[in-house]
Amino acid sequence: MPHHDLKILLAPRSVAVIGASEDQAKFGGRLYRSLLHHGFAGEVYPINPARETLFGIKTCPSISATPTPPDMVIMAIPQHKVRGEIAACAARGARLAIIITSKFSDAGPEGLALENEIVALARAAGMRLMGPNCLGLISPAHKLALCSTPALDVEKLIEAPIGMVSQSGALMGTLFDRAYGVGIGFSHCFSVGNQADLELADFVEFLIDDDKTQVICTYMEGIKSPARFVELARRARAAGKPWLMVKAGTTEDGSRAAYSHTASLAGDFAALKAVCERENVVLMDDPLAMLILASAMARYPGRKVNTVGIITPSGGGGAIGADRLAEAGIALARFSTGTAKAFEAHYPAGQAGNPVDLGARIDEGAPLIAADSAAILLADENTDLAMIVMTTAPDVPGTTRQLADGAEASGKPLFHVMMPGRVAAPARASLIERRLPYSDTMADAVSVIGAWKVWSNYEEPVAAVRPEGCVLRHFAPGELCEFESKALLRGIGIPVNRGVVVATADEALAASADVGYPQVLKVVSAQIVHKSDVGGVALNIQSAEELSERITAMQASVKKLALGAVVEGYNLQAMESGQLELIVGARRDAQFGPQVLIGAGGVMAELLKQVAVLPAPVSREDVTRALMRLAVAPLLGAFRGRAALDIAAVADAVSRLSWLAHDLREHDFEIEMNPLLVRVAGEGGRPGVVAVDARARIANIYHKEKP
Amino acid sequence: MPHHDLKILLAPRSVAVIGASEDQAKFGGRLYRSLLHHGFAGEVYPINPARETLFGIKTCPSISATPTPPDMVIMAIPQHKVRGEIAACAARGARLAIIITSKFSDAGPEGLALENEIVALARAAGMRLMGPNCLGLISPAHKLALCSTPALDVEKLIEAPIGMVSQSGALMGTLFDRAYGVGIGFSHCFSVGNQADLELADFVEFLIDDDKTQVICTYMEGIKSPARFVELARRARAAGKPWLMVKAGTTEDGSRAAYSHTASLAGDFAALKAVCERENVVLMDDPLAMLILASAMARYPGRKVNTVGIITPSGGGGAIGADRLAEAGIALARFSTGTAKAFEAHYPAGQAGNPVDLGARIDEGAPLIAADSAAILLADENTDLAMIVMTTAPDVPGTTRQLADGAEASGKPLFHVMMPGRVAAPARASLIERRLPYSDTMADAVSVIGAWKVWSNYEEPVAAVRPEGCVLRHFAPGELCEFESKALLRGIGIPVNRGVVVATADEALAASADVGYPQVLKVVSAQIVHKSDVGGVALNIQSAEELSERITAMQASVKKLALGAVVEGYNLQAMESGQLELIVGARRDAQFGPQVLIGAGGVMAELLKQVAVLPAPVSREDVTRALMRLAVAPLLGAFRGRAALDIAAVADAVSRLSWLAHDLREHDFEIEMNPLLVRVAGEGGRPGVVAVDARARIANIYHKEKP
Repeated sequence: MPHHDLKILLAPRSVAVIGASEDQAKFGGRLYRSLLHHGFAGEVYPINPARETLFGIKTCPSISATPTPPDMVIMAIPQHKVRGEIAACAARGARLAIIITSKFSDAGPEGLALENEIVALARAAGMRLMGPNCLGLISPAHKLALCSTPALDVEKLIEAPIGMVSQSGALMGTLFDRAYGVGIGFSHCFSVGNQADLELADFVEFLIDDDKTQVICTYMEGIKSPARFVELARRARAAGKPWLMVKAGTTEDGSRAAYSHTASLAGDFAALKAVCERENVVLMDDPLAMLILASAMARYPGRKVNTVGIITPSGGGGAIGADRLAEAGIALARFSTGTAKAFEAHYPAGQAGNPVDLGARIDEGAPLIAADSAAILLADENTDLAMIVMTTAPDVPGTTRQLADGAEASGKPLFHVMMPGRVAAPARASLIERRLPYSDTMADAVSVIGAWKVWSNYEEPVAAVRPEGCVLRHFAPGELCEFESKALLRGIGIPVNRGVVVATADEALAASADVGYPQVLKVVSAQIVHKSDVGGVALNIQSAEELSERITAMQASVKKLALGAVVEGYNLQAMESGQLELIVGARRDAQFGPQVLIGAGGVMAELLKQVAVLPAPVSREDVTRALMRLAVAPLLGAFRGRAALDIAAVADAVSRLSWLAHDLREHDFEIEMNPLLVRVAGEGGRPGVVAVDARARIANIYHKEKP
Repeated sequence: MPHHDLKILLAPRSVAVIGASEDQAKFGGRLYRSLLHHGFAGEVYPINPARETLFGIKTCPSISATPTPPDMVIMAIPQHKVRGEIAACAARGARLAIIITSKFSDAGPEGLALENEIVALARAAGMRLMGPNCLGLISPAHKLALCSTPALDVEKLIEAPIGMVSQSGALMGTLFDRAYGVGIGFSHCFSVGNQADLELADFVEFLIDDDKTQVICTYMEGIKSPARFVELARRARAAGKPWLMVKAGTTEDGSRAAYSHTASLAGDFAALKAVCERENVVLMDDPLAMLILASAMARYPGRKVNTVGIITPSGGGGAIGADRLAEAGIALARFSTGTAKAFEAHYPAGQAGNPVDLGARIDEGAPLIAADSAAILLADENTDLAMIVMTTAPDVPGTTRQLADGAEASGKPLFHVMMPGRVAAPARASLIERRLPYSDTMADAVSVIGAWKVWSNYEEPVAAVRPEGCVLRHFAPGELCEFESKALLRGIGIPVNRGVVVATADEALAASADVGYPQVLKVVSAQIVHKSDVGGVALNIQSAEELSERITAMQASVKKLALGAVVEGYNLQAMESGQLELIVGARRDAQFGPQVLIGAGGVMAELLKQVAVLPAPVSREDVTRALMRLAVAPLLGAFRGRAALDIAAVADAVSRLSWLAHDLREHDFEIEMNPLLVRVAGEGGRPGVVAVDARARIANIYHKEKP
């Protein structure tokens, strides 16, 4: 169903409340009262066969008896009654039904079956559903509150250009309440519940197109339509609307064992994170911090933040602020000389750095020169944002006002950290009145500014262009051996070391000169897992003569140590060297499809436990960016006397692999080079990278399953 | 001055306020009113020559005119008048004078001179000073408020067994205010200002001995008496009083370049951190989180926390809580089978894990079974603390009450994260009434529980015993060359590789057999810095014959590539191998004295950027603990088919070095082994570690300087 329909569906002319009552202990009582209280301009039809009127409005005994077919129906009724009411709503011609009731797919297979029935009923009649197991919606932009949360028990909704979609009803109410307390309002808040019909993405799409929304916030648990998620992220970006997201379950499925080279692949969260990074959906830890950032972004549309100047009435508060920002990797602005000069009129020499301590001003008798300080600081070309660390100064409201006045001309963001309690209450009220963003804790402030910085530093991905000669040729699905895996990689233009698999010692000797020296010999036997333990690996073979000796020795050793093992042959390879080992892999994520993974190899893999995940296909430029953010990046540059490594060759190899992954996107697969050796660029005319071990598993065509 | 005097000084029978007024725009007006308002039981003498009475109390024209000599005097007066008033107070026989006025040592050399004069004046009369440039004190335990902060404008002080000492006055007021808002009180709060006479340590000592104080909180910028700090930390521990601390400036002097092997040594914060870890002074990032932890520890004295069970009315809130705890390394409790069974009465099978989601209960019609859930969870032997993630449930106050009731029997801690805003206000009030700790944000909760866990896992250091044969013998101070440095290390029993420095090729050949094979030859020349660049290093020499050839080649190469360099001789060493490189160093910290440093060596040093700092001397046991916490620890155990490394040998070497550091404690020094090679235990009968390169710098006797 196209999104403009949702625009109509979510702006109803009439709303029916099934199970409406005056009893504030009941869901239906609370949401009915909220609906009336917040001034919805359309018709309201309370449905209650037992009462004539409810809060003075005439009731209808059933949905079939409403004066006109209601555009929207909401029901908070016992589970066994839902099916019948949905049928009645469909029959009456309602456009959208919101089901608060739970115990459907959230409660097991029986509930799921009932939920599917209800969806089928609705679809047959062209009616859409929200929920079940949701908390409804709060649309200040439409003065429409259809939600039972006690958080709605306020005089007036605050309208602001922030849209929120939450997969948890309780969190929606909680965040609405917390936001209200700090003066943050919304255009629309949607609780999506079980997403039986309308889902999170539908509401995000609505918000992207909604004139009243400038920033989108989502709380998400599991994703339903990954492809649509990516498409919407692009549309949000094109519309200039930041999309912030808190994702639950980041540790369970995600970061635990994020390595492709261990038994488990990088989990789902890693894939989602990679997509969010590529599309600039900003992931945050804390839902309140997300809303504060949204309000800051709505206040200062399009403003980018990298460097921070601190102003504070307390040296101590400033020092703590500087510590926390530095720990979070947020740079304190280095003032230009002009700024330093301007500060010298107010502060003793050497005491006008960043943080600016208002308490250190020269003339203690003078009024706090907060306004001047904010103006000077924000006029500085190296400063993107002023963070105010507010403590119990003698005149907190006055200082706050002056800072806001001083900051205004620059148009740059001002962000207050309100550390006191009650004493700062009037100052908080004035910040709310001026729509100036603030947090009550330093942790939230750092979280907000850090995420703002991530959003600001987004670079559009460079379109991936298929490298020359990177074409997937025929292959046999299944577990590919090292030799087959390397053939696959060589076929798409990734350098692999030369090698052959031969059946006999004589064949090995015959191939020896072609492989080149030095070379490595490995025994091939299905029964031998740990080859080196039984003398099944010979390194650094310098000549055919030596190869012959080493084969004889290997045969004897294997015979003795691997009793009964059948030697199928030998793997003879050129022995390569490199300055760095990387692990480079590709896989199909069940949700987001093909992607590549890059991490440090060898011993460092165990210690750094870090891997970059990139959706495939990916350009060389984007691979290079990801490489430079890895912990192992210092070793890619010139290091301890050796020249820089061939980063371009790494980028090329990873990009090629990503195209292979793209070509395999309908399969379930894993491919890994471990290690990919990386060398100094141009050294000895050899390629800058070479894969010396590889494995691949490619299953048959992947069949999409319903989650 | 012994501490029992402070006990008397801080419990005055009479207080004089110089500069008292009724004007609430003035420091003297605000603090005078606070003093009267909060019910101080002793005599109050307002000093003001211009008024007969102030708020109905008869004034004195000067300090010399008080009815009795005041025990305590406080002054917030212009800077130029302070000296005269201090002289008058001293003459009158006051015991303690508190100087709020600033612009003394905080404002440069002139101010410092005046400050010193004032201290001398006071000392001559046996009078102690607080400040100058402080904010006074707030002692709810004595109903004594001597502070101008607007935060004191509350009906009644909250008394609680938490003592606070702050080096920032503004932060003290700020924290007092914020704490008050969440129901946290104090025994005493002290603002120490410039610490001209009484210093932070004096007040900590007072709090250790104070019956009304159970937990000590400090905000510190710079340390004044490091030795006393350590001694007090031990006394606090012996008294069973947790000491929590926020330190400002952790990033400036501290973590930046924490490596001994780069130009800069591990900074001052690293040294302080090491001492805090050894003495269980718990360092925290956020001052509010520090106070919340203090209140939790005061509520549950002696309780240790490692594992957390989560209870929540919202699946979403629970998931976010679990994510944040996991990321902070705090384990979610794994319920015992008995607990799981008990939960099954209330929750569907498979939905009674941790977190416990109250919303998932079987019988939705039943009252929330919060009380039962809390009781079951805390009865679990694997659960140390219940974290409640509270969202906007229909009955937040009721749920909160039930949880508290259910938790009571276990005596184990309950910690609420109150995510809603206004809706949860009554629940917050009930938590305050029952003295149950809570935070308003998840970030604060994680910070509190994380620090509680650190405190809980403290292990007393094992007393360092001097290893046999570890005696500092004669040495010549100055820059020691590699050979001299190794001699120093060998002298205390640390294995170093054999080697000689010889003047000629013939001497090298004569020594060759003694050094053993394989061996390494390095040219010695003051003009050659990068030896390998000029062919001045020969590795892996297998025989005297080869040595002879290599010397000839080296001479030719050096002559050609290092024009004009004077070859002073040759450094001939046994070539050693090992499975891991460590960097082990020792230095004298300007504040805390001798300490040792351990970090990964080689390439990993660049990537892990982590070093353990341990105050010297240190036992082998404590070295081992520190080693196992290093990021490189996985490589110390059995790894990829090789046996575990000789950790005992590392511990012995580091302990020996720490005794050397101890013996050198009156010198300024740096010693470094880079690398110390670590090998598999017992391999080939060789020692488990060997230092193959070393340097040392030992200055003459260190002279203590006033900071």
